[in-house]
Amino acid sequence: MDAAQRTDFVKTMLAKYKSRTDKILMSLLPDKHPKRHLYDLYPSYPLRGGKGFRPGLCIASCKAFGGSEERVLQTAAALELIHNAFLIHDDVEDESDFRRGLPTLNAEFGVGIAVNAGDGMNALSLRSIMMNLNTLGPNITWQILSEIEHMIRESVEGQAIELGWVRDNNVDLTQDDYLRMTLKKTCWYTCIYPCRLGALIATGGRVNLDRFNRFGYYMGAAFQIQDDLLNLVGDEEKYGKEIGGDILEGKRTLMLIHLLNSCSKDEKNRLETFLSKPRQDRTEKQVQWVFNLMINYDALDVARKGAIQLAGAALREFVVAFGDIPESRDKEFIQCIIMYMIEREL
Amino acid sequence: MDAAQRTDFVKTMLAKYKSRTDKILMSLLPDKHPKRHLYDLYPSYPLRGGKGFRPGLCIASCKAFGGSEERVLQTAAALELIHNAFLIHDDVEDESDFRRGLPTLNAEFGVGIAVNAGDGMNALSLRSIMMNLNTLGPNITWQILSEIEHMIRESVEGQAIELGWVRDNNVDLTQDDYLRMTLKKTCWYTCIYPCRLGALIATGGRVNLDRFNRFGYYMGAAFQIQDDLLNLVGDEEKYGKEIGGDILEGKRTLMLIHLLNSCSKDEKNRLETFLSKPRQDRTEKQVQWVFNLMINYDALDVARKGAIQLAGAALREFVVAFGDIPESRDKEFIQCIIMYMIEREL
Repeated sequence: MDAAQRTDFVKTMLAKYKSRTDKILMSLLPDKHPKRHLYDLYPSYPLRGGKGFRPGLCIASCKAFGGSEERVLQTAAALELIHNAFLIHDDVEDESDFRRGLPTLNAEFGVGIAVNAGDGMNALSLRSIMMNLNTLGPNITWQILSEIEHMIRESVEGQAIELGWVRDNNVDLTQDDYLRMTLKKTCWYTCIYPCRLGALIATGGRVNLDRFNRFGYYMGAAFQIQDDLLNLVGDEEKYGKEIGGDILEGKRTLMLIHLLNSCSKDEKNRLETFLSKPRQDRTEKQVQWVFNLMINYDALDVARKGAIQLAGAALREFVVAFGDIPESRDKEFIQCIIMYMIEREL
Repeated sequence: MDAAQRTDFVKTMLAKYKSRTDKILMSLLPDKHPKRHLYDLYPSYPLRGGKGFRPGLCIASCKAFGGSEERVLQTAAALELIHNAFLIHDDVEDESDFRRGLPTLNAEFGVGIAVNAGDGMNALSLRSIMMNLNTLGPNITWQILSEIEHMIRESVEGQAIELGWVRDNNVDLTQDDYLRMTLKKTCWYTCIYPCRLGALIATGGRVNLDRFNRFGYYMGAAFQIQDDLLNLVGDEEKYGKEIGGDILEGKRTLMLIHLLNSCSKDEKNRLETFLSKPRQDRTEKQVQWVFNLMINYDALDVARKGAIQLAGAALREFVVAFGDIPESRDKEFIQCIIMYMIEREL
């Protein structure tokens, strides 16, 4: 399979599982008021055509381990709800204006309605998980809930670390700091827990779920670096967010961290001053200057190579995570996702 | 018992149960990073001396129905966490600057860190509930979780209705609209569910929990009206928030709704224009003008009488909710809370 075939295969599988997840998600929405300022907003981000990595990975892991799709769908829908609630709150936290090509909920409805909708979606995810009780039984359902609780805790910790760096205007970070933060903020909920949950549901807890941790860490970190690269050089129409938005937000990406560690003392001082300003005082011209510096110091190239290394490590760890189960279309799909993570353009 | 004795009794009991709840809450905090931008923030609002109504009502209901304090404390701590997460998000949503006499988390740490801390506290409340599994068994723990999920759903719906009114600049509301919104936004999580959860834990589900619904509705509505009155005429030092903040925020309180339904057409037009402005464009002088209009149209007096009527209805409904159980200090405490709701100054 070459890159184009792989991309097609991954996109087809992701779309299939996303559409089944969205169907469950829509069925969870209560047909009652208030709609315009609450329930109509829950499917807003999911229906903007997100990639559906998390439910895709979760469903595929379940099926690869011999489980059925029906048994995993409520959990996949819960993951998608939590992810989208996280995006809504993230957009509030970053004061972002666009998400998947349309105005963010905070831009369109204000911070209040956006924060509240995210809270409601988190509560709805809990209901979706609880609906497993009759089909999966109390033991597995409790374990799912426990996994989800750990997952949210890790994500919240990662988010706090990242927001803290911006708030403290921390300019002395290393690649290791970045990877530790990314493990928490991204990898657990994007890769590790979707696999853990799928295998848990398929096997009833008969495999040690920690087998997925390193695999998911490498894959998730590659995913995040690619995401940050697309924020800098992506096609705005495909990517759906403002290009360069991360620089404007002062986000500590691998590229920015590399730049801060490579540039001259004078440049570092100027960068520190730029990053110390409130977001609204940062100009387009300054953003362009930072971007050019990144290019000059090979920051994008270094990050791209880092993502490729991580994807390579994920390919090796795939053997630990999935090597002992029979070949299947879903197993192949998961393996293909690894390369797709760094080949994707949106 | 006269009003002063009642106030003393209620305050003493609330303080006792709050301190036991806070102890559990503190024991839930993980001793790990990130502290400054996450875990240190969880106890920030609870330790500012909130009243502790919700854990107080929950613990007292459990004990009044013959349950033990130990069995209810994890759930009381979960309620307090959810309430304080709700306050943190509410402060973000209302752009409030002060809470319990100190800067809000959004004012001190920015919107991002505040929203994220609230999300983390909600996840921690889930863990606190799950810790009941060994002591209360799976059936009761599931029921607690299910009650909590309903509770959050109602609160989120109420919040969406209220935020929607402000966003749409709705000036054609009735007292009934206000009460329906308050039932959702306030009563379920402040009064109804704390009682339901306490009795559920005490009796193992052997009483019909709906017996608390009307009681909690009347008490909660009286509580909310008193809260809104204190926002207008309270002692800033005791109350801990900006006096008049609700007018500045355009919040649809019973007083504002009464005013809009009583004033002249010209005044209503001026009020509508004032309320249509972005918050930052509303002046202190205009706030004072709205306040004076409220006084002129007896809005505060009408609201005060409404709160007293609701407290009276709650006293009657107390018989339905708690009449058939033996007298006890906790039962008396709950009855005293009703009057305290409208007598309190903070």
